[in-house]
Amino acid sequence: MIDQSFIKQLAGIVGPEHVFTQKEDMLTYSYDAAVLDSRMPGGAVMPGNTEELGEIVALCNGAGVPITVRGSGTNLSGGTIPESDGIVLLTGRLNQILEINEADMYAVVRPGVVTAALAAEVEKKGLFYPPDPGSMAVSTLGGNVAENAGGLRGLKYGVTKDYVMGLHFFDALGNYVKTGSRTVKCATGYNITGLMVGSEGTLGVLDQITLKLIPAPVARQSMVAVYDTIEKASETVAAIIAAHILPATLEILDNFTIRAVEDYSKAGLPMDADALILIEVDGHPAVVAEEGEKVQALCRQFGAQSVTLAKTDEERDKIWAARRSALSALAQVKPTLVLEDATVPRSKIPDMVRSLQAIAKKYKIDIGTFGHAGDGNLHPTILTDRRDQEEFHRVEQAIEEIFDKAIDLGGTLSGEHGTGIAKAPFLEKEAGYSSILFSRRLRKALDPNNILNPGKITGVSE
Amino acid sequence: MIDQSFIKQLAGIVGPEHVFTQKEDMLTYSYDAAVLDSRMPGGAVMPGNTEELGEIVALCNGAGVPITVRGSGTNLSGGTIPESDGIVLLTGRLNQILEINEADMYAVVRPGVVTAALAAEVEKKGLFYPPDPGSMAVSTLGGNVAENAGGLRGLKYGVTKDYVMGLHFFDALGNYVKTGSRTVKCATGYNITGLMVGSEGTLGVLDQITLKLIPAPVARQSMVAVYDTIEKASETVAAIIAAHILPATLEILDNFTIRAVEDYSKAGLPMDADALILIEVDGHPAVVAEEGEKVQALCRQFGAQSVTLAKTDEERDKIWAARRSALSALAQVKPTLVLEDATVPRSKIPDMVRSLQAIAKKYKIDIGTFGHAGDGNLHPTILTDRRDQEEFHRVEQAIEEIFDKAIDLGGTLSGEHGTGIAKAPFLEKEAGYSSILFSRRLRKALDPNNILNPGKITGVSE
Repeated sequence: MIDQSFIKQLAGIVGPEHVFTQKEDMLTYSYDAAVLDSRMPGGAVMPGNTEELGEIVALCNGAGVPITVRGSGTNLSGGTIPESDGIVLLTGRLNQILEINEADMYAVVRPGVVTAALAAEVEKKGLFYPPDPGSMAVSTLGGNVAENAGGLRGLKYGVTKDYVMGLHFFDALGNYVKTGSRTVKCATGYNITGLMVGSEGTLGVLDQITLKLIPAPVARQSMVAVYDTIEKASETVAAIIAAHILPATLEILDNFTIRAVEDYSKAGLPMDADALILIEVDGHPAVVAEEGEKVQALCRQFGAQSVTLAKTDEERDKIWAARRSALSALAQVKPTLVLEDATVPRSKIPDMVRSLQAIAKKYKIDIGTFGHAGDGNLHPTILTDRRDQEEFHRVEQAIEEIFDKAIDLGGTLSGEHGTGIAKAPFLEKEAGYSSILFSRRLRKALDPNNILNPGKITGVSE
Repeated sequence: MIDQSFIKQLAGIVGPEHVFTQKEDMLTYSYDAAVLDSRMPGGAVMPGNTEELGEIVALCNGAGVPITVRGSGTNLSGGTIPESDGIVLLTGRLNQILEINEADMYAVVRPGVVTAALAAEVEKKGLFYPPDPGSMAVSTLGGNVAENAGGLRGLKYGVTKDYVMGLHFFDALGNYVKTGSRTVKCATGYNITGLMVGSEGTLGVLDQITLKLIPAPVARQSMVAVYDTIEKASETVAAIIAAHILPATLEILDNFTIRAVEDYSKAGLPMDADALILIEVDGHPAVVAEEGEKVQALCRQFGAQSVTLAKTDEERDKIWAARRSALSALAQVKPTLVLEDATVPRSKIPDMVRSLQAIAKKYKIDIGTFGHAGDGNLHPTILTDRRDQEEFHRVEQAIEEIFDKAIDLGGTLSGEHGTGIAKAPFLEKEAGYSSILFSRRLRKALDPNNILNPGKITGVSE
């Protein structure tokens, strides 16, 4: 229980200046980027080192106080919404890049390091950390690991889990657990590293993360293809993959999104286009040249009205800035934005796009669709006003129908935003009840007092 | 308990022709490729479909009879050595390739499919399943997943865990659990797929495996570099990686191994060379040409006496046949062969090679060293005679010193052979006691009656 004595003990561990209980602070930590009810935590604490982190976990386990770890709060499934009888553990001071090892191509970081900060440091050494979630300018690597964050490069380079080689974390009992290694192969013990990635802070509190790095691609080519129907655009996407080309990035924007982006950023996008696809191929210059040619030819073959190549770095940056502004742009349209990430096998993208249009029509709601078409991970984005209860009810029905359709097409509820609170009630649809029981048994054994981010992933009835 | 009634019930599930209790059969299933005491199981059973598999698991859980799943028994850490009061579950009839999906680049297989059989089918469609454990001609994909098998291509392409997208399995209670998806991104629920890979049959019995496929590389170039000292060879390996070149394969053979291979296969290897490195670069023709040039230059710069390129497919195949015969060749030298796979960060390969030479000298034993130098995964191979107790004691001391050295250098006990029985006693050295406790809690929750391959990974004291 959080009482004066508990707060005093927290202050004894980290110093009173790193414990927060004021209402305005609690408000800040009561919500994240998901459209869900906020919840005020009972306090927040910001440890400065490994020892303090471990003492906080042990204290909370002893007192039965739930811990929700928070990096930058960019979570899109409610994974960082705290318990009202719990504390928020802030990783802001655990923000050191401990090592970048060029010879063995790995980095060791603390959980509070900002994704873009690591990417920039690594780039200086001619290396590459590919995962690039939309929020990477502010998101933390601890949050990325907890959510198994994806990004624009998932198609060719994979997602966060493909880069986590090892972890140091405190388990619920306050024991310090080391998993994985700094070697590219490791078959010793259970793959606890793999289990921890995407576990949303429910199985342990991260202290150190070892990340795989790869050589940076030496060349790249970005391009934009314009379509008069989104069907043609989505068929192009499937055709590119079918031709065994894996672009670094292969994104789609529908007309709704194009107009929102253009209103917001004046990027010079064609407002009357029904859809755009944005493509970047990278690697060796010869590969880039060849794949670039093939992709352009496929775009035209499948009906692109135009294909424009970025001729300079500035032109390239403009394309990707437009894409990266999509979420902010759509957020201007209406008071509430619900960003979904149901994902389907890549060949089903045309089916999914058609279904999204039908669902928008059926429920009379605005859905802007953009996202990582190349890996089947679309972001249907519903623009609404949560205060309009009647409309929001239709939105909820539409979301459920989107989930059903994704699963029908052999897909998944979440490509990269995680389960959190938002998708926990729908998990059974995809994974079945046995999988939930298995997960709950596992979780109960590892967190017997249910203090690690309760209610996330496996739901509240445990 | 295994009694007549239990055997009768097994026969009722799969038919009496698929239940085995004869002594000669039990002998066959009493050992694997690890140098450990054999143990005769109480019976063996070969289910033919999902339903039979589930019924066997439920029967065993109810009766408290341990199950050890066995594919081809190529395990190198004792993972397939059964319990004397348990049964061996044979996957030989669960050997169907259920789907190869070209558009979405995945395959769905049953656990008994032979690795090379899938690789060949996939290749016909212009796709590629990269993991290639040394035993792939006979090993099964179920075994590969259970052990997180590696292979010669780990350096560039990763290992089995990097290709498992989803699983269907029976948990210890006989519930059918589905995990993962057929999409390249999936962030729904826990990453149980990741946990299951490398869990050595201790958390569930596999029924279906969904594997990621990638486009096949269109060109490749193999070459052999000859050295008068193994130090120069190992420094070349580190230099290639430091130059940010990731060959598909980068293998080393020491003089002991070269002579054994030459005796065995008359491959035309230079018997007086202190070491060889065998390299293959692959990908786009321009990349292959450029990386091939750079690798040759580095070989010469670091002291190679000669670098020979394979000019035809026959010459290429001859190089890799020689490498793949190393284990068989060494096995001819003495009655007992202990194949280790301690793995170090790649830049530490020269250190590890020097240490192996010193350890061989110190304990007056024969160590032939070959293996996947490019990913730090050497295979120091000790030739001995287990019946010579005095020598075998020195061998055991040497192995422990090899483990210690690998860990000192920031490495791991096992790069790809798993923990099994052989390395379970040493796990704490690497992972620490907290990690073992965490693993035991997890396991106990998921297999409360301890029927799934007991004693493997976390040891017997649970």
